[in-house]
Amino acid sequence: MNKHLVIMAGGVGSRFWPMSRPENPKQFIDVLGVGKTLLQLTVDRFGKDFDPSHIWVVTSADYLNKVKEQLPDVPTDNILLEPCMRNTAPCIGYVAWKIKKKYPDATLAISPADHFVVDTNEFRRCINAGIDFVKGTSRVLTLGMKPTRPDTGYGYIQSGNPVNGTEMMHVQAFREKPDYKTALQYCREGNYNWNAGIFIWDVATVEAAIRMFEPEMASLFDQMYDSFYSADEQATVNKLFPQCNKISIDYAVMERLAGKNIELAGQPSGVFVMPSDFGWSDLGTWGSLYAQTPKDDNNNAVIGAENVSLIESTDCIVRTSGDIKMVLQGLDGYIVAEDNKTILVCKKNQEQRIKEFSETITKQ
Amino acid sequence: MNKHLVIMAGGVGSRFWPMSRPENPKQFIDVLGVGKTLLQLTVDRFGKDFDPSHIWVVTSADYLNKVKEQLPDVPTDNILLEPCMRNTAPCIGYVAWKIKKKYPDATLAISPADHFVVDTNEFRRCINAGIDFVKGTSRVLTLGMKPTRPDTGYGYIQSGNPVNGTEMMHVQAFREKPDYKTALQYCREGNYNWNAGIFIWDVATVEAAIRMFEPEMASLFDQMYDSFYSADEQATVNKLFPQCNKISIDYAVMERLAGKNIELAGQPSGVFVMPSDFGWSDLGTWGSLYAQTPKDDNNNAVIGAENVSLIESTDCIVRTSGDIKMVLQGLDGYIVAEDNKTILVCKKNQEQRIKEFSETITKQ
Repeated sequence: MNKHLVIMAGGVGSRFWPMSRPENPKQFIDVLGVGKTLLQLTVDRFGKDFDPSHIWVVTSADYLNKVKEQLPDVPTDNILLEPCMRNTAPCIGYVAWKIKKKYPDATLAISPADHFVVDTNEFRRCINAGIDFVKGTSRVLTLGMKPTRPDTGYGYIQSGNPVNGTEMMHVQAFREKPDYKTALQYCREGNYNWNAGIFIWDVATVEAAIRMFEPEMASLFDQMYDSFYSADEQATVNKLFPQCNKISIDYAVMERLAGKNIELAGQPSGVFVMPSDFGWSDLGTWGSLYAQTPKDDNNNAVIGAENVSLIESTDCIVRTSGDIKMVLQGLDGYIVAEDNKTILVCKKNQEQRIKEFSETITKQ
Repeated sequence: MNKHLVIMAGGVGSRFWPMSRPENPKQFIDVLGVGKTLLQLTVDRFGKDFDPSHIWVVTSADYLNKVKEQLPDVPTDNILLEPCMRNTAPCIGYVAWKIKKKYPDATLAISPADHFVVDTNEFRRCINAGIDFVKGTSRVLTLGMKPTRPDTGYGYIQSGNPVNGTEMMHVQAFREKPDYKTALQYCREGNYNWNAGIFIWDVATVEAAIRMFEPEMASLFDQMYDSFYSADEQATVNKLFPQCNKISIDYAVMERLAGKNIELAGQPSGVFVMPSDFGWSDLGTWGSLYAQTPKDDNNNAVIGAENVSLIESTDCIVRTSGDIKMVLQGLDGYIVAEDNKTILVCKKNQEQRIKEFSETITKQ
């Protein structure tokens, strides 16, 4: 089958400082302490359904060696290097134009590199059902996570009518991260799902959508096209890619396409959502990592650290690089993180300020 | 002048874990972050009044190289190595017997290696006045620190009558670490001083006192005597020293001699105290180190660490090895200490349990 996996692995993970930092962001780290990095877990999760030659990773040049080390089966040609961060629309455009050149009939499953899934069997069932749903059409499918709480850290997908004979729904609208009251309302109404940033669509649909909504960006990829798979590719990309608008695929395509009757590549298009329930987290915060990690009797989550002793401490999340020893006494509700000779101790409920905290020290 | 400085530097400093540990105890550490170790500060404090050839250090064989590195001017022959810890009486006996062999008229000022003094000029004045007071007599002089608070962590010296024409007092009794109520009473009565463990006496008095009160110990040093300053010294000491009673000089001599009319070396003896007020701490606890360290506006004491950022944190003491960065947010009243890839975070008021804390991790 002509199905391809695209992994977006260019983020810098600043919210997990000091564990995650620009030179070693969280997708390349064994965040969960399970012996595999988040990138490796992502590939494992899609797993046997994708041939290594059909797995593509878009990342930054700084991380090329990390990707090669962590995914030795993925051909080097399939690792695309963005010269700068331009959000997800240019990222997806670049990889789509490149795949199209070799595999014009490809169906793409596009996924972030750093998310977490509990039930990988159900996950794979959803991905394959999604691929079957879009294949040969101009449909765009997103996976919508059944919300388990009124989370204000996620975007929501508002679904409309079901698609007869399938588990998919038409998407009515994308909703940005809501305030708590709104999130609560979304959960009550039942037709809202978390936007997990996983998109399934044919490469021809990606191309047509970007051509329609971001014609300047499409023109840049057209100019790069001849260089793909040649010795000139990186130089050409380095020159033209930075001219792309910095815009997410959600803004560039999804929101513009949802709830309308638009044709793409000569076929009726539309955005669809597959309400899914396989246990998911974007692992975007220490809090979400804490939620996904086994706790001890005092509700402490200790990750990747054998030499941590917690005494009269509760509700903490502790993550060390492994070659350090730690005794923590009398801490309640703290994040304690260590990496590369840098230590953070802060209240769990202050984690949205971690970037600010990190700047107080790295400037010195 | 025939005056000698004896520094007892054999302690293991377990109360300052993880900064201080058996392989690198606190006397060999720049505990105060001033660029010199406590041992070096001790020698500096006695300073110019003692010729390097008259400075003696008693320590353990494990620490020989540390002493040589930190005190390069002290002759290797003057560094005495105890094969095991036998408390202060055998320590002082060994060094006294050895000094006596070369300098039978020596007056000894004996001091721990790890204390802290604020006013070093006044300190030196006291030491020299003390040496003048005992020289050529059988007097034993202790320095008594004027108590500034009812501290229950120190022993107290109860003084009796003054010695006419001097600032010295007869010692009536030594009192062990009191409970709070008793300490309060001592402070009110005015004739109690903290026992700082600094003793000034002639070497002949030391010998006579040990011979009188610990004859078996004296006999062991008599057996070692011939070996001193020879190639056999260490082997002989290693064989005989462990047979010494494990007893402090306070128990062995001071308490037995105080308040009585006893002759030593053919002269009237007695224990005297010099009430002193030069700002002193035994730096025996993180709390005492905290008390001696400059604080920031939030009453945090940060020692030896340029890369520590304290945010919304108060009343903490932070001590790192220097090559580590730390962000601490939302901590109130904690000890945060890092050394050799080991980190301790604990409530300041739980520091008496640090040994227990350290054992939870080092056993792993």
